[in-house]
Amino acid sequence: MNTGKILERLESGFERDLELVRRFLRTPSISYTGEGIKETGEAVVGMIESLGGSARLVKAEGGYHPVVFGRVDSRAPHTLLIYGMYDVMPAEEPGWIAPPFAAEIRDFQHFGPCIINRGATNTKGPLASFFNAMRAVRDVEGKLPVNLIFAIEGEEEYGSRTFAQFVKENLEELRPAGAMLFPFFGCDENGAPELRLGTKGILYFELACRGGDWGGPVGRGIHGSNNVWVASPVWRLITALRTMVDEEQRITVDGFFTAVRGPTAEDKELCAALGAGPDAADFLKANDVRRFKWDMQAEELFIHAMTQPQLNIDGIWGGYTGPGTKTLLPHEATVKMDVRMVPDQDPDEVVRTIRAHLDRRGFEDIEMRVINKYLWSKVSPREPVVQAMLEVYRFFGKEPALQPLNIGSAPFYAFDRILGIPYVFGGMGHGGRAHSSNEYCVVNGILDFEKSMVVFLDRYLEGAEQA
Amino acid sequence: MNTGKILERLESGFERDLELVRRFLRTPSISYTGEGIKETGEAVVGMIESLGGSARLVKAEGGYHPVVFGRVDSRAPHTLLIYGMYDVMPAEEPGWIAPPFAAEIRDFQHFGPCIINRGATNTKGPLASFFNAMRAVRDVEGKLPVNLIFAIEGEEEYGSRTFAQFVKENLEELRPAGAMLFPFFGCDENGAPELRLGTKGILYFELACRGGDWGGPVGRGIHGSNNVWVASPVWRLITALRTMVDEEQRITVDGFFTAVRGPTAEDKELCAALGAGPDAADFLKANDVRRFKWDMQAEELFIHAMTQPQLNIDGIWGGYTGPGTKTLLPHEATVKMDVRMVPDQDPDEVVRTIRAHLDRRGFEDIEMRVINKYLWSKVSPREPVVQAMLEVYRFFGKEPALQPLNIGSAPFYAFDRILGIPYVFGGMGHGGRAHSSNEYCVVNGILDFEKSMVVFLDRYLEGAEQA
Repeated sequence: MNTGKILERLESGFERDLELVRRFLRTPSISYTGEGIKETGEAVVGMIESLGGSARLVKAEGGYHPVVFGRVDSRAPHTLLIYGMYDVMPAEEPGWIAPPFAAEIRDFQHFGPCIINRGATNTKGPLASFFNAMRAVRDVEGKLPVNLIFAIEGEEEYGSRTFAQFVKENLEELRPAGAMLFPFFGCDENGAPELRLGTKGILYFELACRGGDWGGPVGRGIHGSNNVWVASPVWRLITALRTMVDEEQRITVDGFFTAVRGPTAEDKELCAALGAGPDAADFLKANDVRRFKWDMQAEELFIHAMTQPQLNIDGIWGGYTGPGTKTLLPHEATVKMDVRMVPDQDPDEVVRTIRAHLDRRGFEDIEMRVINKYLWSKVSPREPVVQAMLEVYRFFGKEPALQPLNIGSAPFYAFDRILGIPYVFGGMGHGGRAHSSNEYCVVNGILDFEKSMVVFLDRYLEGAEQA
Repeated sequence: MNTGKILERLESGFERDLELVRRFLRTPSISYTGEGIKETGEAVVGMIESLGGSARLVKAEGGYHPVVFGRVDSRAPHTLLIYGMYDVMPAEEPGWIAPPFAAEIRDFQHFGPCIINRGATNTKGPLASFFNAMRAVRDVEGKLPVNLIFAIEGEEEYGSRTFAQFVKENLEELRPAGAMLFPFFGCDENGAPELRLGTKGILYFELACRGGDWGGPVGRGIHGSNNVWVASPVWRLITALRTMVDEEQRITVDGFFTAVRGPTAEDKELCAALGAGPDAADFLKANDVRRFKWDMQAEELFIHAMTQPQLNIDGIWGGYTGPGTKTLLPHEATVKMDVRMVPDQDPDEVVRTIRAHLDRRGFEDIEMRVINKYLWSKVSPREPVVQAMLEVYRFFGKEPALQPLNIGSAPFYAFDRILGIPYVFGGMGHGGRAHSSNEYCVVNGILDFEKSMVVFLDRYLEGAEQA
């Protein structure tokens, strides 16, 4: 590959390429509502076609929004699977400094010019930029030096609920792939790259407490004054929840940690390196958090974050939540929760554990409704695809922080456990405030990211030749 | 008074009078939004004018919606103050079997024909019916045998926040009143009348927990996966709330009961009578509640309900409450609560008590915002105005259940403590599901109610003559 020439071409064509990214961002593609999903999926098909490939929209059984399933066949000896997502979260939070789908470029924080847009970093920004990079490769080389298979899902923000099913249903077409790449802005607020060797799993569920045989109003809220002699489902839910954590918010669900493997020697080594860096302090600053949950040294913090599960409350609601003073004894209260599972936790076992914990304390009436679940996944740093990404960062003069596990979740177990291939996610570039107002990505970082994808291809193919 | 002739006239004119009630109900008058408040206030002015009186709309300092302040001067020796309200709660609950402002007549439950409408019973239904009754008196008698002062407030459902202020600002004009009557459908599901000798006070407040120096995200929610090392304001609020009740939902706020007077001998006597009746069982049935909060005998239950305060959660919210699986570590969680105060609790002292309870446990950061507060109020069963209402029920062959205290709240302390006059609320008729879907009043009960208001006038004047 004539890498130098391709990188030059990316630089000279950046103004045009940046506009392509912004155009792609301006179409909303909101997972929950379906707004713009169709147009955006078709735009991704178009981007694959612009590389000389072909693609179709494929729904797995029970799927919400289709996967853009495509292929660029270069009759090359090696095949990479490109995973990605074209859907985004809603953007209804207050506080946006620019319209969330205008892709305006603003000087933001200390980063200089940034695109402010829902999906700018998570992850339509990197997706569109990846196509810019591949088009430059093709333009210079005549054709891509690798075959690409694309599986760009449209329901990641809906919890990737049928992505594993999609992989199962299309195993034969996916089989040629030797590894998976998820193009992603991999640098933090200071431009330091992070490389995550896996992801936590997720169990997302609701607990609902309603009036019934135990007491409380059934079927409808009643006048608030009746709480003097009628029990409250809200107080009951609070009482039940409080048994699941201690005063310091440590999880106290019976048997919750039984399957937790705990830190390996490798985990500890990686976390020691992370702890020595500025990442923990940077995290606080970037997220507007003044202190971590517990008083721990940075190294301990990373070990905890990357080897321990969480039990988070994503939302809670019940009764009257409007203005003023409506007095109501509500008939139900509900909480949305997620467990981020680590090796060797199994979502079905966690569900049983929580159910048994509640039942043992007399909360059989509290309904547990599982909305989504998938497994954790780990990849070895010795895999060639991971090594290729390491070399990418080094090409840019950066030594990446290796993280044992992404504390977030992604359905990557579909690759290593179902398809049986290693994977990596990353690239240069930086963005932030995913799922928040003013999601952004740094404009200059887009060019670095595009270059990094070219270098990745070069290094990966070099590694694959040697293997 | 030619009571017999007036009652006949009410019967023969009922079809027309019923339409007047329905017409009045069809205009929404929603306290929170202000929708229809102006039109409805003007309609009340019109109803006072239809009695030959005059009225104006008066806002107390800081008032939201005006009081309809009117007078019918009959140059009679006695003057009654008619208190009422022309505002209603919103009607956005699911489950209405008829549009909430269509005043449709439907066969409902076991009651036969009922008007289904927000405000049908609480309390635009009785208000309009009261005017029907007074018009019949005037038509037969030529003029009313009593002077009436009207103070019909428009922000009762907003917590009557400036009603006491209105009384203070208009003491001179109110002074001629010897007693207050609040016209009200006073019978339960079985047609048995209840007479309440006072009301609890109310303290309505919010507790809000936000990320800050103690931990948690500040200013905005962040990606849910961070709960592994960042504390949650939702968990913190739950932990704080849980210190305020025990597992059985008994209030455990330090010092909360210090000022509670407890049941008097009279309270106990009245509650023994209540406990012997079907009221407790009827209450459960009418409110779709399967059991009371604690295993108590009916007598004990009534003593508890009518002499003890409550600490209710009217609503709770925080984080993501929409469909699907948005993962979020919220930056705040809020709860709306009310305390219903009994003798001799004082709202300001209760605020200090709750604040101190939270502070003592390290929850100084949790913000307490008082939205509304007013005092409890008691009236003696020996007051002539109460005796008159007792005789009304006996006229209809009913022996009313005397309740030491209304477990709900009303700003009646403005009458006995500020204006210095006794009061009574009641009348025949039945309605239910106030603040819920399908609020209703029984059509036949409206006629009984109208008659009962005429009988009340007769008996009250008789008692006043004797005094």
